[in-house]
Parts: sequence; structure tokens; C-alpha cells
Amino acid sequence: MHIMIIGAAGMIGRKLTKECIEARAQLDGKNLSLTLVDIVEPSKPEGVDPGITIQTIKADFSDQKTATILANLTADIIYHLAAVVSGEAESNFDKGYAANVSASWQFLEAIRKTNTTPKFIFSSSLAVYGPPFSETITDNQCLRPSSSYGTQKTIVEYLISDYTRKGFIQGLTLRLPTIVVRPGVPNAAASSFLSSIIREPLAGEKAILPVEVNERAWISSPGIAVKNLVHAAILKPAKLKGISTINLPGITVSIEQMMEAVISTGGNSLSKLIIKEKNEMIENIVCSWPYKFDTTVAKNLKFIKDSDINSIVDQYIKEHS
Amino acid sequence: MHIMIIGAAGMIGRKLTKECIEARAQLDGKNLSLTLVDIVEPSKPEGVDPGITIQTIKADFSDQKTATILANLTADIIYHLAAVVSGEAESNFDKGYAANVSASWQFLEAIRKTNTTPKFIFSSSLAVYGPPFSETITDNQCLRPSSSYGTQKTIVEYLISDYTRKGFIQGLTLRLPTIVVRPGVPNAAASSFLSSIIREPLAGEKAILPVEVNERAWISSPGIAVKNLVHAAILKPAKLKGISTINLPGITVSIEQMMEAVISTGGNSLSKLIIKEKNEMIENIVCSWPYKFDTTVAKNLKFIKDSDINSIVDQYIKEHS
Repeated sequence: MHIMIIGAAGMIGRKLTKECIEARAQLDGKNLSLTLVDIVEPSKPEGVDPGITIQTIKADFSDQKTATILANLTADIIYHLAAVVSGEAESNFDKGYAANVSASWQFLEAIRKTNTTPKFIFSSSLAVYGPPFSETITDNQCLRPSSSYGTQKTIVEYLISDYTRKGFIQGLTLRLPTIVVRPGVPNAAASSFLSSIIREPLAGEKAILPVEVNERAWISSPGIAVKNLVHAAILKPAKLKGISTINLPGITVSIEQMMEAVISTGGNSLSKLIIKEKNEMIENIVCSWPYKFDTTVAKNLKFIKDSDINSIVDQYIKEHS
Repeated sequence: MHIMIIGAAGMIGRKLTKECIEARAQLDGKNLSLTLVDIVEPSKPEGVDPGITIQTIKADFSDQKTATILANLTADIIYHLAAVVSGEAESNFDKGYAANVSASWQFLEAIRKTNTTPKFIFSSSLAVYGPPFSETITDNQCLRPSSSYGTQKTIVEYLISDYTRKGFIQGLTLRLPTIVVRPGVPNAAASSFLSSIIREPLAGEKAILPVEVNERAWISSPGIAVKNLVHAAILKPAKLKGISTINLPGITVSIEQMMEAVISTGGNSLSKLIIKEKNEMIENIVCSWPYKFDTTVAKNLKFIKDSDINSIVDQYIKEHS
């Protein structure tokens, strides 16, 4: 089985690579080969069984020639995780559409021309939703993105559904909750602060909180998110019964609950490290996202979720200290 | 006031041209100028007040240079009616996406670069909906197109919403019911038969019915549709309160009711001219469309609908015999 990961050098991409190797038996008992693609050189995980072939490709998949070359490697499963994140897509309109729509579409076209109908797993986002929406988001909720990023994800979701219906790919869009805690440094995602307010205080550093403490978010740990991405690859297409888009399970937490989880781990003094500083652009984007979902479809398909915010914080500390 | 109609040579485009001239006083008391654009030479309506300037342009707006030239004419109101219709978009995947998505997007980009923020009125379709949907379609219904045409309309709708949110255009998408009775000859729209089964028998000719008689459709006469298109141009943006997509009013009729309306006008013998001949492709597309809508939003904004199928048939006979 040949798995290609576009966006393999990113945080989720790196974790997904490891998870694919660990889930080797479920994915394919004998021949697993991984092609890791990113705009920066993806690193090969160490200590991997030599029976698993891993090739890394440093390439910009938004280049038409590159898209064709990648498609012609005819992977059985293609993960498309590459994206210009929400904050950057909002401030740089051209860059967002070029990377998030044009490049994705061109890649789908290149795949269509191979006539191989691979599994195509696309990571989308709750940013496809915006107000007005009912308190609990169901699969029947109209997509109403209130950001360019959300619009771009929406458009690619619809392309994937149509390409799947026409038999050009076996597409599956997974809408990921906001990933918390992201390790490392803040990025240009509007939701980046949701990780910062946990990560920075635990490291004794200050973090900016740009929204009110009673705001809520729909989140998933990186560990659970990659387990769900691998589960999507293992799922038999027949089980999907025509479903091409799934809201992955997550948990609803308030900023306050996130701060409490940090304090219960690191002590009261950490609360001083969280500095309130309103930011309207971030607030407009993140607070327009829903925070409560009915994920019955995902649960019936055996996708999983975190138990609570404390276990998410514990998981982060265990892996990064 | 300068109004540009892309797709002006089509049936709706021609009627819309006349309606704009008739509604001149509401649109702009003094200076009305019309730019009629189509891939075939649009005809100038006759007997028009010389105070109204009309220019016709035979051009393919899917050509990038042409799109830029048209955008640089900086019309105040742009109607975008051009489309590869549903049946053709389903059988010719490349052509459908090129015309219905790429060309529309490129045109929006050309308009954005003019920094003029025109009113941009886009004719979309109930083909953006597909099963499963609730019996009555509300504005909150998830778009779930089951054809490439519906997917293409969906994508452009979302582009228009985002371009409007960013202030590049004042966009308004109007989802038109299926237009019945279209005069002339059948076209490649999957719904073309809905006009044929009225038009052909009235002319003493045979028509093919590719679906069951108990199937229902959501329809509007061409006359009401163009009145609604002009109303959209007159509507003050403030009244829209952020709404960028509207399901236009229509009426629900069964095939049986349409046949009865034909018979009540032309006599019993006409029923023999409707030949049942199942067509799976047409059935898959047309019967996946909803036929019942809650159009409260449109009604509150003073969009109108036909009274019943008999008045639609009468209107057709009056205008075309």
C-alpha cells in the first residue's frame, strides 16, 4: 500500500506519518510505502522497520508540473493536509485562494487524469460554518463561512464530493476541530492562541488572549486527530454509504476551562501569564465558529474523541517535556 | 446607470433586456445604458427610446483578456446569466467546470481589480440542492448538489459571498426555480422536458416525458423570473442585511398538473402527444431537485411568484402565438 501525505512536514503531517507506521498492520500487513511531500523537506522518521519504504519530496504542489508528477506516483491513499492557514488567508486574499483552492483543484485534476481513483482524504475545518447556525451543528447545517479560509475549504469540499460522485477519486473530507495543544511556536492561524494560552504558561512564558474568557471552542488533541485520519484510510468505502464529508468528534471547552486546566497542572501563578488583549480580526473569525456538534455519523463510523481538556493538557506535557 | 448583461442573447437575457428598459424609471430616471454581452451577437431590442444607450458585444467572457475588458467597462450593475446547462455540464465535465466555475471566477477577479464594487447579480439554481433534504427547503438547508452543474453553481455562490464580504463586489445570488415555459426548441438542460411537455403539444407536436407523472417541480415563468431579476437591481443593499443568496419564489407543480393545464387549454387529444420514455440520466438529475421551498426571505424583500400553472401556460400562449 502506497500512502502519500501532502503537507507532511507540518505538525499534523509528522504525527500522521508516525501513526501510519504504527498502524501498519491495519493499513497493510506487508508492503507499506510512504511518500512524504511538503514545500520544505519533510524529515524521515527514525528507527523505522526497513520493510517500510519512505521517500521524501520537497516540492510545491501548487506548481502544475509538480502536481502531475505527484499524481503520477499513483498512491493508493492521498492525504491532503496542505493549507495556507486562516489568519494568513484572510490577510492575503490572493495567496489563500491560490494555495487553498487553485492548487487543490489542479491536483484533483492531475489525479483524475491518472484514472486510478485513489482514496483522497482532505482535512477541512469547522471554519466552513458561520452565523447564523443552530446551537448544535448537524450534518444538515448549511455551510456559511465567514472567512476566506472557510470559503476556500468549502469550495474544495464540494469539488471532492463531485469528483467522488463521478468516480475520479474516493474522496473523504474530514472537518477537524481546532487542534489544541499545537507544540512549538504560534502560527498565522486565527485560532493559534487556543494553543498558546496553554503552551506558553506551562513553559513559564506569557500568552496573549485576544477573546473573552467565556468564549467556547470545539477542539481535538493532535493525537486523536491523527488517529482519526488513519482510521479514515482503514474504513471500507462501503461503510460510508455515499457520505463524502464528516464532522470529526471533538470536545467543547471554554477559554476559562482551558485556563483552569493549565492552573490545575502548573499552579495558580500561571494565570498571570495569560494577558488579555482584544484582537478584533481574530475575534471575528474564531468567535464565528460553532463549538457544539452532533457527530453521530462520525461516532457510528468509529471515529474517536478526547475525554476532556485535562487529558489533552496531560498528553501535551507527556509528549513535550 | 450602466447595466451589463452577460448571457444577453439567451432567452432570459433577451427578456431581461426588455424588462430593464421597461423598468427604466425605477432603475434610473435619466441615463440608462445597457451593455449586452454573449458568445453569439446579442440582438438590440427595437423601438427603444434613443435616450437609452445600448451596446452589444459578441465575446467569450471565459477568455481572460475579454473578462478584463468587460470588467473595465465598470458597469454599475452586472448580471451574470451565462452558463453551460445541467445536462451538458454532466456529460462534458471539462466544459462545465471551465465555463461555469473558471470563467466566472476569472471575471470576479477582473472586477475586483477595477476597485468599483458593482452590484453583481448571479443566476443560480435549485440544482445546488440534492438528497437528503427536508420536505421544505429553508435558507438553512445544507447545499448538497447531485450534479456537476449544481456543484459549479454552489462554488460560484460561495465565491460571490466571500467577494461581497471582502467588499470587492455587492454580490447577490438568486436561485431561480426551473423556468417553464421556455419558448423555442429543447436545450441541453436536464429539465428541458418540463417546457417541452407544454410547448410541443400546444404546437401539435410530440414531446418526450422522461420521468414519472407524479414527480413534482419547482417552477417560475420567464416573465416573473425577469421581473425578480430587475427587482434585485432596484433593491437597496441595506435591505439585504448581509444576505447574499436568495431562493426566489416559485410554485410547486406535478407533471400531471402540467399535463392537465395543457389539456384544459388545448383539449384532451393533446395528451396523446406526450410520450413516456424513461431517461435515467435526466431522472437522476431532475428528480434529485427539491420542489417545495420556504421563501419567506424573498417574499419579505418583495420578490414575486406566479399564481398557478394555468396562468403560466396562458402567459406562454399569449406571448408566443
